[in-house]
Amino acid sequence: MDLELQFGVERLHARYAQALDSDKLEDWPDFFTEGGRYRIATAENEERGLPLPVLYAEGRAMLRDRVASLRHANIYEPQRYRHIVSVLLIEKVSDSVVVSTANFLVVRIMQDGATMLFASGRYLDRIRVPDMLYEERVVVCDSRRFDTLLAIPL
Amino acid sequence: MDLELQFGVERLHARYAQALDSDKLEDWPDFFTEGGRYRIATAENEERGLPLPVLYAEGRAMLRDRVASLRHANIYEPQRYRHIVSVLLIEKVSDSVVVSTANFLVVRIMQDGATMLFASGRYLDRIRVPDMLYEERVVVCDSRRFDTLLAIPL
Amino acid sequence: MDLELQFGVERLHARYAQALDSDKLEDWPDFFTEGGRYRIATAENEERGLPLPVLYAEGRAMLRDRVASLRHANIYEPQRYRHIVSVLLIEKVSDSVVVSTANFLVVRIMQDGATMLFASGRYLDRIRVPDMLYEERVVVCDSRRFDTLLAIPL
Repeated sequence: MDLELQFGVERLHARYAQALDSDKLEDWPDFFTEGGRYRIATAENEERGLPLPVLYAEGRAMLRDRVASLRHANIYEPQRYRHIVSVLLIEKVSDSVVVSTANFLVVRIMQDGATMLFASGRYLDRIRVPDMLYEERVVVCDSRRFDTLLAIPL
Repeated sequence: MDLELQFGVERLHARYAQALDSDKLEDWPDFFTEGGRYRIATAENEERGLPLPVLYAEGRAMLRDRVASLRHANIYEPQRYRHIVSVLLIEKVSDSVVVSTANFLVVRIMQDGATMLFASGRYLDRIRVPDMLYEERVVVCDSRRFDTLLAIPL
Repeated sequence: MDLELQFGVERLHARYAQALDSDKLEDWPDFFTEGGRYRIATAENEERGLPLPVLYAEGRAMLRDRVASLRHANIYEPQRYRHIVSVLLIEKVSDSVVVSTANFLVVRIMQDGATMLFASGRYLDRIRVPDMLYEERVVVCDSRRFDTLLAIPL
């Protein structure tokens, strides 16, 4: 039972990471419920309770807009991400909701091949079951040093 | 059966990592049995059979002392860790003991936001079941280059 | 059922990584079927469909040759790897074959203790079940910047 759920959440996180790493940004909104919320924040602001997300989007329509502007603006240098997700903990809060936390690292690869540790932090997720869709995904980044290239979702 | 155990050990490692990453150092001794041993060593010394741990503590009382001195001395610059744990292998050696190995990476984030790959290595664990407590946790670090800031448990 | 298989593939990947990280290169060919294929490629060439692997070996005999020349040539500076494997997704394609994808990071530790993020990328695997042996393992590296030391299998 718990095993099934753990496996299901792991698989959801993995499909999400794979979509971003494969530049399938158009699939990204479909990992969320219709009104799903996505937020990138810094650990510092989260701790201080400051309501200053680096990025906030609510609902699939807004997530799709975000992808569309990324595709059209196209201001950023071509780059690739590689996600590592680990230290997953889940908790069932009701028949239809699971919350989960997980650590992540993201490596960024620029077009010339230069590779760097780009971001680390925690995913704080609220997942609707059995659909396995994010009602909320909060990406808490450890560092407040944000690269201005921060445009692709994490 | 094996699945349950694998899941249990994964969850133990994840709770441990989360406690350290969330600066809940006071919870750290409770992951060990009453007489549990904790040791940080370098791969080089382990291979040569040199009994020179970077850090050694035995028993919850000593682990608590360690946390207390960290809190009071407070000589280190504020920093945050982010653990990644992977490549887990477990083996049941008796009804009450499981041994496990796992790879880890630790990213360190300084107060100014600077992020670096701080440590990599292997956890060699002896876990009491079904309590899921470490009888022994040996942290074998790949590099012998140890930062003098090495104060927070890994 | 799926859980058993997921666990089995995870365990295979973990044993493989552990063998390489422990410098047990002689065990490496035994993770493959008799005619198993191993290939290291770059993401760039894979996308362009260019048949230019960085390394290619087919069959255990060839894999053993590769290990033997590594051991005898011994031109490289002593180094250690540390693998992190994450974001695993599996799919059963027949009763005897599972395909899987997973993300990896490899940290390299030189003899003087210097540590660096060495490679990141994706494993694309074709695994024979229930033997749990690689029929094919393709290592797609994110960066085309390949260190000339690239000699140890990934």
